[in-house]
Amino acid sequence: MTAATPIRVALIGLGKIARDQHLPAMAADPRFALVAVVSRHAQQPGLPSFHTFDDLLASGVAFDAVALCTPPQVRHGLARRALEAGKHVMLEKPPGATLSEVEDLRQVADARGVTLQATWHSRYAPAVAPARAWLEGRTITAARINWREDVRVWHPGQDWIWEPGGLGVFDPGINALSIATAVLPRPFFLTEATLHVPENRQSPIQAQLAFVDTLGVPVTAEFDFLQTGPQSWDIEVDTDGGALRLSHGGARLWIDRALVHEQPEAEYPGLYARFAELIGAGQSDVDVTPLRHVADVFLLGRRVAAPAFIE
Amino acid sequence: MTAATPIRVALIGLGKIARDQHLPAMAADPRFALVAVVSRHAQQPGLPSFHTFDDLLASGVAFDAVALCTPPQVRHGLARRALEAGKHVMLEKPPGATLSEVEDLRQVADARGVTLQATWHSRYAPAVAPARAWLEGRTITAARINWREDVRVWHPGQDWIWEPGGLGVFDPGINALSIATAVLPRPFFLTEATLHVPENRQSPIQAQLAFVDTLGVPVTAEFDFLQTGPQSWDIEVDTDGGALRLSHGGARLWIDRALVHEQPEAEYPGLYARFAELIGAGQSDVDVTPLRHVADVFLLGRRVAAPAFIE
Repeated sequence: MTAATPIRVALIGLGKIARDQHLPAMAADPRFALVAVVSRHAQQPGLPSFHTFDDLLASGVAFDAVALCTPPQVRHGLARRALEAGKHVMLEKPPGATLSEVEDLRQVADARGVTLQATWHSRYAPAVAPARAWLEGRTITAARINWREDVRVWHPGQDWIWEPGGLGVFDPGINALSIATAVLPRPFFLTEATLHVPENRQSPIQAQLAFVDTLGVPVTAEFDFLQTGPQSWDIEVDTDGGALRLSHGGARLWIDRALVHEQPEAEYPGLYARFAELIGAGQSDVDVTPLRHVADVFLLGRRVAAPAFIE
Repeated sequence: MTAATPIRVALIGLGKIARDQHLPAMAADPRFALVAVVSRHAQQPGLPSFHTFDDLLASGVAFDAVALCTPPQVRHGLARRALEAGKHVMLEKPPGATLSEVEDLRQVADARGVTLQATWHSRYAPAVAPARAWLEGRTITAARINWREDVRVWHPGQDWIWEPGGLGVFDPGINALSIATAVLPRPFFLTEATLHVPENRQSPIQAQLAFVDTLGVPVTAEFDFLQTGPQSWDIEVDTDGGALRLSHGGARLWIDRALVHEQPEAEYPGLYARFAELIGAGQSDVDVTPLRHVADVFLLGRRVAAPAFIE
């Protein structure tokens, strides 16, 4: 790809994440040109806008790739049709409502020779790569994830988050797992989980998870959607060479309580840079590890009743 | 492998499935020799018996392979150590308590160049292969799974089945999914699920599942653990060439209500024949599709409260 021939993108699903992140990231990257928008309700001034993907296909507007920002429950059908039409596809996180459908998309992309990218934006937080590098070669003795936020502040009116497939506190929690699986050097496996589910909802509002890695090192996670006061999106790792702390969702890196890395946030520009690179190389990047961990939690977790959640 | 050098197997976990199926299947197959048993409580007369896998390793008893018949919750650690010790491993179903640990075992087996077999015994029911062959080339319009049994008859006293990870009605239901994924020609994906969970238990006692395949064909499943009277382990497939029915858990094949295939049950001999074949060829067979579907169901399913289950 050269600057002279940008990748023409159709964006599907014009919700908050599309407007806040995808539109500015694409506008700032000369390798991409947004050429159309598909949304049931919204329009984007100055761009061809369509109510359905069928309408876009029928329009004759030429495009090379699709950025899929719809809720996960309708992502598979759209992604499959785009891949079958020979388009590259970027999937917002989580990459699907089920693991089986993501596996299917991977196979379709491979068969069609197009790029499929399952994105985990938190992995592009500025301190994640430095944290991974710092941990390499050190002996880890324990890791703790603390992801505590106030759902009323960060997800106001998002009733879908409590529905089946909405994942509850794992909607932010999967970001923590995407970082932990990127910075810790060995895979880890769930051994026990407790899920606190409000009596009037389907999805957990709090969770405690216990994992163990392939050398027996404990990795624990505490997810809380009812945190008022200070919010925390932290991962702490104890090593023989000191204590690492990734705070602010991967934005800041601390070693033994000293701030050693802080850069401006640029997660979505990073995702699009990677998308351009994958398309250029004719490759896909479909890592389901974070979603598989969440599925494992739902499969193996013990559910306990929590008080009703009323927003 | 030749008859002169049988594969020496250590069997771990001497419960009902080991005694009912694994011991007779190995005894009848000259390619295998059972050389040791590991069980916390039981012994096998005439064979070296050990309380732990460590005791077996320390004993100096030589063995080539392990058949793992313990509950899934403790399978990963044992399997990993056996693979790391260069032993081939057969996993009873389900292959693990989580998908992540099965993926890990697959990677360890590949790295060590030993055979890992995730077994799905129902796929070796006598009418499964004929059903798959009959469906090839026919146009399928719908498929229905009906798996209804009386838990009090088939799982008396098995409290573990109701615990987290015990899978409830999916303990038999995963057998249905292992057959359906073997006979239907295309992958299918969960779109909706309802899980009925007794108010005093963790795992579902009844479930309704709706899948769709890659051509939009509906696949539905009805799992029931409270079926009294006639039991059913049936899969029905409607096609342009007639209606197929696999009954009795894959033992009998019916086309348009006429019985066309019925052979004596030989599931575990089939599994061991396959294990010998894989070891001979230096290959593994780790298909997680049935377990992934169950994880998808727990991830996406809507839970409704059911009356307390008291055995």
